[in-house]
Amino acid sequence: MAYNRVDAEVIAALRACLEGGELLTGPDDLADYGHDETEDLVHPPEVVVRPRTTAEVARIVKVCARHCIPITPIGGRTGLSGGALCVHGGVGLALDRMDAIEHIDEHNLQVTVQPGVITQVLMDAVAAKGLYYAPDPSSKGSCTIGGNLAENAGGPRAVKYGVTRDFVLNLEVVLPNGEIIWTGANTLKNATGYDLTRLIVGSEGTLGVITKAVLRLIPLPTQSRLMLVPFNSATQACEAVSAVFRAGITPSAMEFMEREAIDFTLMHVEGITLDVPDGVQAHLLVEVDGHHADVLMRECETILGVMEAHGCGEVLFAETNAEKDMLWKLRRNVAVAVKAHTVYKEEDTVVPRYELPRLLAGIKAIGNAHGFRSICYGHAGDGNLHVNIIKAGLSDDYWEEGLPGAIREIFALTVSLGGTLSGEHGIGLVQRPFMDIAFSTTQLAIMQGIKDLFDPTGIMNPGKVLPTQKKEAVR
Amino acid sequence: MAYNRVDAEVIAALRACLEGGELLTGPDDLADYGHDETEDLVHPPEVVVRPRTTAEVARIVKVCARHCIPITPIGGRTGLSGGALCVHGGVGLALDRMDAIEHIDEHNLQVTVQPGVITQVLMDAVAAKGLYYAPDPSSKGSCTIGGNLAENAGGPRAVKYGVTRDFVLNLEVVLPNGEIIWTGANTLKNATGYDLTRLIVGSEGTLGVITKAVLRLIPLPTQSRLMLVPFNSATQACEAVSAVFRAGITPSAMEFMEREAIDFTLMHVEGITLDVPDGVQAHLLVEVDGHHADVLMRECETILGVMEAHGCGEVLFAETNAEKDMLWKLRRNVAVAVKAHTVYKEEDTVVPRYELPRLLAGIKAIGNAHGFRSICYGHAGDGNLHVNIIKAGLSDDYWEEGLPGAIREIFALTVSLGGTLSGEHGIGLVQRPFMDIAFSTTQLAIMQGIKDLFDPTGIMNPGKVLPTQKKEAVR
Repeated sequence: MAYNRVDAEVIAALRACLEGGELLTGPDDLADYGHDETEDLVHPPEVVVRPRTTAEVARIVKVCARHCIPITPIGGRTGLSGGALCVHGGVGLALDRMDAIEHIDEHNLQVTVQPGVITQVLMDAVAAKGLYYAPDPSSKGSCTIGGNLAENAGGPRAVKYGVTRDFVLNLEVVLPNGEIIWTGANTLKNATGYDLTRLIVGSEGTLGVITKAVLRLIPLPTQSRLMLVPFNSATQACEAVSAVFRAGITPSAMEFMEREAIDFTLMHVEGITLDVPDGVQAHLLVEVDGHHADVLMRECETILGVMEAHGCGEVLFAETNAEKDMLWKLRRNVAVAVKAHTVYKEEDTVVPRYELPRLLAGIKAIGNAHGFRSICYGHAGDGNLHVNIIKAGLSDDYWEEGLPGAIREIFALTVSLGGTLSGEHGIGLVQRPFMDIAFSTTQLAIMQGIKDLFDPTGIMNPGKVLPTQKKEAVR
Repeated sequence: MAYNRVDAEVIAALRACLEGGELLTGPDDLADYGHDETEDLVHPPEVVVRPRTTAEVARIVKVCARHCIPITPIGGRTGLSGGALCVHGGVGLALDRMDAIEHIDEHNLQVTVQPGVITQVLMDAVAAKGLYYAPDPSSKGSCTIGGNLAENAGGPRAVKYGVTRDFVLNLEVVLPNGEIIWTGANTLKNATGYDLTRLIVGSEGTLGVITKAVLRLIPLPTQSRLMLVPFNSATQACEAVSAVFRAGITPSAMEFMEREAIDFTLMHVEGITLDVPDGVQAHLLVEVDGHHADVLMRECETILGVMEAHGCGEVLFAETNAEKDMLWKLRRNVAVAVKAHTVYKEEDTVVPRYELPRLLAGIKAIGNAHGFRSICYGHAGDGNLHVNIIKAGLSDDYWEEGLPGAIREIFALTVSLGGTLSGEHGIGLVQRPFMDIAFSTTQLAIMQGIKDLFDPTGIMNPGKVLPTQKKEAVR
C-alpha cells in the first residue's frame, strides 16, 4: 500500500476546510515546518495547514483520510526525537495558531487550552492568578502544550511535581477518521472505563490530533532556594542524588551536569559567568520550593549535609533572582551550547535514580571502546540522563553506519539497569530502530494493535514510534 | 458464541497447572469467593484456583483460553462495583496467596509486590523504613494492591498524593492468551511507546491479570493535624472545600460527611463517641500532613479562617493519636454502618470540586422527586461524592425496576457538571448500564476495540466495564 501525493485536488479540498486558518505551499514555509530540534534532520511536508479551530482540524483530517495522505501534527518544533518531522511528506498540520488559553478556572484549579499555547505563556498566565502549571521542559519558551502532551514532556520540576501526563485531566482529540472525542472527564479522579487520556498522552501524534486540553493546576509556590554543588567526581555527584531523597527531601529540581556541559555553555552562551575550579568534574543544581522560607532553609541544611557527606566542593547559593536566573540559564542552555559547538546525537536515557552512577560509567566505557566523546547532563532526580554524543573528528561513515551499534549498547545497558529508551523526549523517528531493546515482540504487537485500532489506514504521523510500518510513500 | 462449563477435564487441567497453589470446588468455598462488598450480589465461580506464582497464573489462563472458560481475577473482595464477581461462572482466579512483598528498594524508593498483598500490610512494611505508599482506600485493612490497581482505587489521601495510578511504575501482566509481559520500566519518567501501564490500571481485570507491580514510594510524612468541622448547611460545607485549595493549602485529606452518615456510624459502629449538636447538617474532616509541626499549625490556622468564613461551628482538633484514630474510624466506617442499617445501592459520583454543592443539591432533588433517601459522604477535595441510596420502605419492584431510572438522572447530572460515573470504585458490573451517559458510541467502540485486541475470545473477566458483550454463558 502507498500514500498518495498532495496534488491540486487535495490542495483545493484542504483550502475548503479552512475558515480562519491558513495554507502554505511556498518552499521556504515548507522548509520552515520541515525540521524540529532533532539533530540536523529536515523532512518537509508537501503542504502546511494552520487551522484555528477543532472543526477545521476535523475537516482537514477527513480530507487526508479520503485521499490517503499522511498527516503530521506540528507544535513548537522543539522536539528532540523527530516526532513532528514529515518523513512521508503529506500534510504538515501546524497547530501554532490554535493558541488560546480558553478558560482559567480558579474555582476548580483547572485550565482549558488549545494545543498551540506556548508552555511559558501558560505558566505566566496562571501564575498571575497565584496558580502553577509545573511541567517545564527546557524549551518552555518556545515549545507548546500540544507537543508536551504528545511527547509526555518532563523538565526539571518533574522530580517533585510530575510530568505532563500527571497534569492532564481531559483531552479533546480528532481521531484519524475525523471524528472528535473527549478522552475522559474534568475530574481529579476517574475510574470510568479505560484510560484513553493517558493512552493519548505520549503517543506522539500517532493516534490522533490533540485539539484541546483540560489541565490541572496547583497553588503557586511562593519561595525557592537554589544551589549549585560542585564535585570532583561525577560518580560521587550521582551517588549524592539518591541520598538526598533518602534523607526525606523531595527537591523541586535535582539536575546533573558534567563539567564539559558547563564548559561548553560558558563558551557558547552569553551572559553567564561562573568560576569552575580545576578538578571539578560535575555539578548538581538543586532547588527546593514551597510556601515557607524557614522550611526551605532547613531543607537546604539537610541537603548540604548530604552533599558534604559525598565530598562536594564549595556550594554556591543563589542569593538573588538574577543569580537564580543565571544558574537556570546555564542549565537550560546545555543542549543549545553543545549544538552550537558540534554536530551531535542526543539520547534520553532513564534509569531508577540509584543506578545513575552505573549508567554514567557504562556510557563512558562504551564511548571509550568505540572512540566517541559524550557530554552527559539531565534530570538526575528522575534518573533521566541526556547523552550528547559529539561528532567532532568522527567520520561521516562511522557517524551514520557505525554509531548506531554503539547507541544500541547504551540502550541495552539502560534497559539492563531497569530503565528504558526515553524519559521525556519520546521515540519519534530517531529512536524507533531501538524499540526492540526495550520491548518484546508481544509488547510491540499490542502497541501496533492499538495504532491499527485508532488509525487503520496509517495516515496519522506515519514512520514514528513503532518499528514496523505498513505503508511507504510514493515520492 | 458461548463459554464452556468447567468439567472434570478442565478441573484436571487446572490441577496440573498448580505447584504450590490450591484448587477449591466445595460449595462453601465457591460461595465465599462469589461475592464482594457490592450490594448483596452473589455470583460464584465454578471453581476457585489460588496460585502462588506468575507461572501458575500463566498456565491457568492458557487452560481457560484453550477451553473457552471465563476467568475472573479476585482480590480482597472489598470491591463496590462488582468487578470480581464471576457473573459467567468459570474460574475464580483468587490472587490472595500471591501476597509477597518481594523487595523494598530503599535506594530508589520503589517496592516490588505480588498482587495479593493487603494494602495496609504494604503501608506498614514501608513505613517501618520511613517510606510512604499513600493510596489508602477505606478498606485498606482487607483490600489488596492487585484490586487497587485493577480499580484505580483512591482513598482520602488521593487529594494530596494521587490515586493508585499515580504510584505505579511498572506491571507484570499475564495476557488473556497466557503470555507474560511487563508494561513499562521501573523509572519515574517514561516516554517510550504507548503507556500500557496506565492502560492496565483501572481496566478492572478485563485486559489481563496483574501478577506483579513495581510501585513508587515517597518519604513518610512525620506529622499530621486532623480537625472535624461542623456546618449547619451541607452546601456551605461543600463551598468551603474549594476555598481551602484556593487559599493555597493542599490538605492530605478533605472528607465530607452528611449528618446522617455520622448518625448511622455512631449507631452501628462501636468505640466512637461524638457529640453532634442539633442543627449540624454536615461535617468536613480535614487533615494536613508533612514534616514540620509549625508549618502544619500555620496551615491549620489558614484552614480555620476559611471554614469560619463559611459559617462553620465549633471545630474539634484531634489532640491525641487515639482521637485521630477515632475520627478516622468514624469516616472509614460510614459505608459499613449504612450497610448494617439497610439494603442500599452506592454510587461513586465525581465532579470538579467546585461543583460539589450543585451535585449534592441535585441528588437530593432527584431523591425527593423519586421518593428515595440518600446518605452522601466522600472525598470532597477530589469532588468525589459517594451516594448511598437507602432501600428502607421502597418496594422490591421499585428497587429493581424503578430506581435505575433515578440513578440515570444522578449520573446525567454528574456528567453535565463536568464529572463522570466513578471516581474510584470502577464500573465493574453494576455501573455498566450507565456507560452510555458518560461516553459516545465512538468512545465505547475504541474501548471495545482495546478489549478485543487484548482478549479476542472474551474470556477475561467477562460482563464487566463495557456495555456490549460478545458471549453468553451456557448455564
